[in-house]
Amino acid sequence: MQLKVEHLTNIRVRYGETDQMGYCYYGNYAQYFEVGRVEALRELGLSYKELEQKGIMLPVAHFEVKYIKPALYDDLLTIKTTITQLKGAQLFFEYEIHNEAQQLISQAKTTLVFVQKESMKPTSPPPAFTQLIESYAV
Amino acid sequence: MQLKVEHLTNIRVRYGETDQMGYCYYGNYAQYFEVGRVEALRELGLSYKELEQKGIMLPVAHFEVKYIKPALYDDLLTIKTTITQLKGAQLFFEYEIHNEAQQLISQAKTTLVFVQKESMKPTSPPPAFTQLIESYAV
Amino acid sequence: MQLKVEHLTNIRVRYGETDQMGYCYYGNYAQYFEVGRVEALRELGLSYKELEQKGIMLPVAHFEVKYIKPALYDDLLTIKTTITQLKGAQLFFEYEIHNEAQQLISQAKTTLVFVQKESMKPTSPPPAFTQLIESYAV
Amino acid sequence: MQLKVEHLTNIRVRYGETDQMGYCYYGNYAQYFEVGRVEALRELGLSYKELEQKGIMLPVAHFEVKYIKPALYDDLLTIKTTITQLKGAQLFFEYEIHNEAQQLISQAKTTLVFVQKESMKPTSPPPAFTQLIESYAV
Repeated sequence: MQLKVEHLTNIRVRYGETDQMGYCYYGNYAQYFEVGRVEALRELGLSYKELEQKGIMLPVAHFEVKYIKPALYDDLLTIKTTITQLKGAQLFFEYEIHNEAQQLISQAKTTLVFVQKESMKPTSPPPAFTQLIESYAV
Repeated sequence: MQLKVEHLTNIRVRYGETDQMGYCYYGNYAQYFEVGRVEALRELGLSYKELEQKGIMLPVAHFEVKYIKPALYDDLLTIKTTITQLKGAQLFFEYEIHNEAQQLISQAKTTLVFVQKESMKPTSPPPAFTQLIESYAV
Repeated sequence: MQLKVEHLTNIRVRYGETDQMGYCYYGNYAQYFEVGRVEALRELGLSYKELEQKGIMLPVAHFEVKYIKPALYDDLLTIKTTITQLKGAQLFFEYEIHNEAQQLISQAKTTLVFVQKESMKPTSPPPAFTQLIESYAV
Repeated sequence: MQLKVEHLTNIRVRYGETDQMGYCYYGNYAQYFEVGRVEALRELGLSYKELEQKGIMLPVAHFEVKYIKPALYDDLLTIKTTITQLKGAQLFFEYEIHNEAQQLISQAKTTLVFVQKESMKPTSPPPAFTQLIESYAV
């Protein structure tokens, strides 16, 4: 199912997230994208926290990121998160990060997989999730 | 019970652990001390991992650290970890970090508490732990 | 000079900041306190970023933290930051963290030192800083 | 220039690197791959630290990672780093992570770019680097 759910979140680069190059360390973007998708789900009325409490986890299976311009200390970034597809147990996200000067600094994609907490095996998303997300099909 | 268990561990400062000041970020020392105490316990024959599998956790209740000189990128640090005291459910550690030039760069203390995983309440350490640690009483 | 500058900041615990105990990892609080003090300074009209651009850094010399209750994933925390004293090159902060249930989960203190970027030696704070902070003397 | 430089590094998963799923957080692999490439370069006789001191930085431009099985707390991982290509200012790395049970848990690729520190513009690698790396051409 192709989807179009878009969400904007702001994140300010913390001092501890910079490295001695003066850039936001490349590994820290993973947290920014995670915040982007959690907030995108929250806006849909879905709590990732509650999902886990029901015994379903959503680990990342694939992550790809392009670093176009550096994010710098204290930059106020805008993360645009798009949920693009639900395909079996897989949920696909795309991201763009812009800085305050409206420059595109990063593009990324992640594939997440619905997994049973006990068995650690892929599983269908909860019916309530599928139902809700269906209204965003394109 | 006053104790004297000393252990040395080496850690090299990772690029992602530096900040734009060119220092190892002050928050990252917490991980170094954690590695120090896990390795100190391992040398005693105690696996922190197994402790958790038995339903006992050892969260940090108090942490104090003095930053004397900066740790820099690629520095090979020596963490000296000392287990100093076991008092009820509390386990006390002290730490010193030296760099390759043998300069003292940091001193720290932590207090950890044995906690039941289910109830999240303080608990006695496992008898096997107490027995083993008793041989290091001073 | 005794001071009283108080500032409240909200931070939501990120998934990547939790550990397998299900707690916010004890080392991650350092970033929260850093955000607290940067935002406290910003409210006063002081940009830490600009301070560094003028060749003055403000590393942490001492850090002490008490963990009272765990911070959990997705908790919306309130960091109360208080600038308590300016004494020569040293600037003192105190912090309290409450969760959404208004429970006190952590208390902390840091001592920061104004340092010349080039020489890495302690230095007086910039006159503009001292002047501004003087109006908060108690 | 196609290359074949292979290097093995061991890294033990730290407690602070796990998340509440009990997995090593997906964002923390970036540090592991960074350690892998720094150690691969060091074995060749190249210090990334010295490279930066000469005014050349090597930021990551592209990063792709596949998470096959989770890395768990205290797992002793083996990172196999391969330098696969030097093409103008771009240096290509590939990585594989195995756990102690010899299971492949992750595969990744990064593209790094030689950049002038001052101008932040792409630049040729230092002649000494190219010369050394040429002996590994395939």
